[in-house]
Amino acid sequence: MKEFVALTVETLPVRLGEESSLRARIGEDTGSWQVAEVGDGNLNLVFIVKGSKGAVIVKQALPYVRLVGESWPLPLKRSFFEYHALKRHSERDPGMTPEIYHFDERQAIIVMQFLTPHVILRRALIEGRQLPKIGRDLGLFIARTLFRGSDLSMVAKQRKADLALFADNAELCDITENLVFSDPYFEAKLNRHTPELDPLVAELRRDRDLKVEAQRLKHIFAANAETLCHGDLHTGSVMVTDDETRVIDPEFAFYGPIAFDVGMLIANFWMSYFSQSGHEENGGRDSMRAYLLRTATEIWDVFVEEFSHLWRTERNGMLYEASLFEAQGDALGAEQALDGLIHDIWVDMLGFAGVETHRRILGLAHNADFETIENTALRAHCEAKALKFGRHLAVNRSRIHGMAEIASLAERLQREIVQ
Amino acid sequence: MKEFVALTVETLPVRLGEESSLRARIGEDTGSWQVAEVGDGNLNLVFIVKGSKGAVIVKQALPYVRLVGESWPLPLKRSFFEYHALKRHSERDPGMTPEIYHFDERQAIIVMQFLTPHVILRRALIEGRQLPKIGRDLGLFIARTLFRGSDLSMVAKQRKADLALFADNAELCDITENLVFSDPYFEAKLNRHTPELDPLVAELRRDRDLKVEAQRLKHIFAANAETLCHGDLHTGSVMVTDDETRVIDPEFAFYGPIAFDVGMLIANFWMSYFSQSGHEENGGRDSMRAYLLRTATEIWDVFVEEFSHLWRTERNGMLYEASLFEAQGDALGAEQALDGLIHDIWVDMLGFAGVETHRRILGLAHNADFETIENTALRAHCEAKALKFGRHLAVNRSRIHGMAEIASLAERLQREIVQ
Repeated sequence: MKEFVALTVETLPVRLGEESSLRARIGEDTGSWQVAEVGDGNLNLVFIVKGSKGAVIVKQALPYVRLVGESWPLPLKRSFFEYHALKRHSERDPGMTPEIYHFDERQAIIVMQFLTPHVILRRALIEGRQLPKIGRDLGLFIARTLFRGSDLSMVAKQRKADLALFADNAELCDITENLVFSDPYFEAKLNRHTPELDPLVAELRRDRDLKVEAQRLKHIFAANAETLCHGDLHTGSVMVTDDETRVIDPEFAFYGPIAFDVGMLIANFWMSYFSQSGHEENGGRDSMRAYLLRTATEIWDVFVEEFSHLWRTERNGMLYEASLFEAQGDALGAEQALDGLIHDIWVDMLGFAGVETHRRILGLAHNADFETIENTALRAHCEAKALKFGRHLAVNRSRIHGMAEIASLAERLQREIVQ
Repeated sequence: MKEFVALTVETLPVRLGEESSLRARIGEDTGSWQVAEVGDGNLNLVFIVKGSKGAVIVKQALPYVRLVGESWPLPLKRSFFEYHALKRHSERDPGMTPEIYHFDERQAIIVMQFLTPHVILRRALIEGRQLPKIGRDLGLFIARTLFRGSDLSMVAKQRKADLALFADNAELCDITENLVFSDPYFEAKLNRHTPELDPLVAELRRDRDLKVEAQRLKHIFAANAETLCHGDLHTGSVMVTDDETRVIDPEFAFYGPIAFDVGMLIANFWMSYFSQSGHEENGGRDSMRAYLLRTATEIWDVFVEEFSHLWRTERNGMLYEASLFEAQGDALGAEQALDGLIHDIWVDMLGFAGVETHRRILGLAHNADFETIENTALRAHCEAKALKFGRHLAVNRSRIHGMAEIASLAERLQREIVQ
């Protein structure tokens, strides 16, 4: 089969059953495979396939955006970039991605490990579950993948070749460039928001400082090809149990700023924080709220700790070479450079977190944290706090000193001490 | 002829004479072509070829660094990148590059316009010539090429494809990464400097703030793929008459920060300033010094003026979209964003200027401004001022307010009011 053909529940066993390695893993009798389409994302088909021997996930890209339909074409090659990003992530932080069993570039199919009893982290947070390990696991994941994909670690020539490879993922970057950084800030046609937010939305779209900052962040996103980013690292791209954390769906992978993955990830914990009052009964989510702020802080702290550890032990790339510092008896020079870099990541991370918050409430791709609050007045009440919080971060990002200050801001907004 | 073979004065007419378009331009009787090898650069062969009808320049890359020898291999593909950069420069600022007549990728040969009576700008400045047009011409050139090669102007997908193309120019970037940003700051084996500078060189190599800043600039150079840079834009890459300015030799072209070309270019005027006392008799270069500071200022001012003009009239790329600003009646928002961007370019430009100054005195590739001062004590005296000047710029770049402040610093160093 040469031409791309979308899989169906009916055709999947016949088509993938041709691969002996998959039959060996799922079950030789392909006729007894049980197939269910479970995709709830915005872009792709996702199947669970179970047989006598085991189960796998089959993910197939479609030549258009599933959320919108065939009117928005999107190239199948995103599957190629997802596959290559998964490979790199699995090398850079082993055990944090699903195992890959099979990749068919032409059919845009990745067959991978069926993670069970894992659930999507976003769902768990909506339900009020406090996962004990995610702060540490995710902090380590971003530190390791972002450090090891940069010129701090890679051979420069190899990084440039990889940069050239991923530069072709332009259509997925285009989605982020528009949907994250621009559309939320004017009346773009794909936007939608909870109607009760109208006055605040109008205020934000008149907010010159915010718009300038969002565009400055877009510039950094597009120009600063510092490392291989996951590109879509929110709580819907993480699968969890109490003991395990896995990061999935890096089809938006691109060479971009270290701060982008960090900011997008942490923003989704802050959004979950503001969404909790939409899901609680009788104030039952106080402990969950404290957990979410604590986890956002933990992700950042672990990121800094691990990034610093890698800086001191694996800084073998061409940047901040040891020959200029440690080899000259000036280890403190390297620490000074590290402080400067962490500071820059912090400032930009806050900006990316701010715009991520806005686009999830004002743009096309909303998130379930807020969307599952059926009472729109209550939802708008939660969303308004998140919007104000995001605006504060984006505009004041170079003057915010640490996570304690941000947690305090979040708590004051939540308690309506500030509006 | 498939394999690469270096041209010689003897073989050139036979080999290039096969091209009818070149015979038509130079003269049909290839036997009467006069060929002279005139390359004085660090990397390539350069011939002037004259015939009955006209003259051309033939530039051929060698598979190694000419300055060092066959022990330092360097890929021929740099000729491909030079050709493509020349094409883009000629589209983005017409008339500022030599016309290209012929390109042979396999033989790494570019045949181009013989510019006459043009001379290399660096030579003219050493001789004390005040070229009236270069400030304006070069300011326009950097504004136009750097703006029009960025996401401020290009279609994002095309820029990403071009970024991928130029990412393969890794070996030339590697030269800059090492020779500009790292080698000058420790005892690298390719370094050399005027012996009288020993104490100051030791001081600079112990200077933690300077080394950290140089590495931060290397990080920006390597990661910030903002636009197509010339990559080697010094006064040796500019040919001039009183009426005309042409920019040549973009074989180091790469996607990098706007500020890189700006800073490297202006630094070479400041170096010329400090070198003048090595070339003057009886204080005769006072007017030349004033001209050089004035021209550095003019380049920056024209750059800002033209960049701002293009921002207001050609900002059709995906960054800082008019739909968010002008289309919302908020032209002042776009001006605010422009101010921010110009500020960022200014700060980084000063840093790149600082390290360019250092590497030309401490690294491998010195420049003739200082090298032609035969009295080494006098040369070191000039170079020491330039080194201190460069250190001041690099370390204080975020706290320097404008060209007047820098001109004043240069004058105080020149008059030895500060040491």
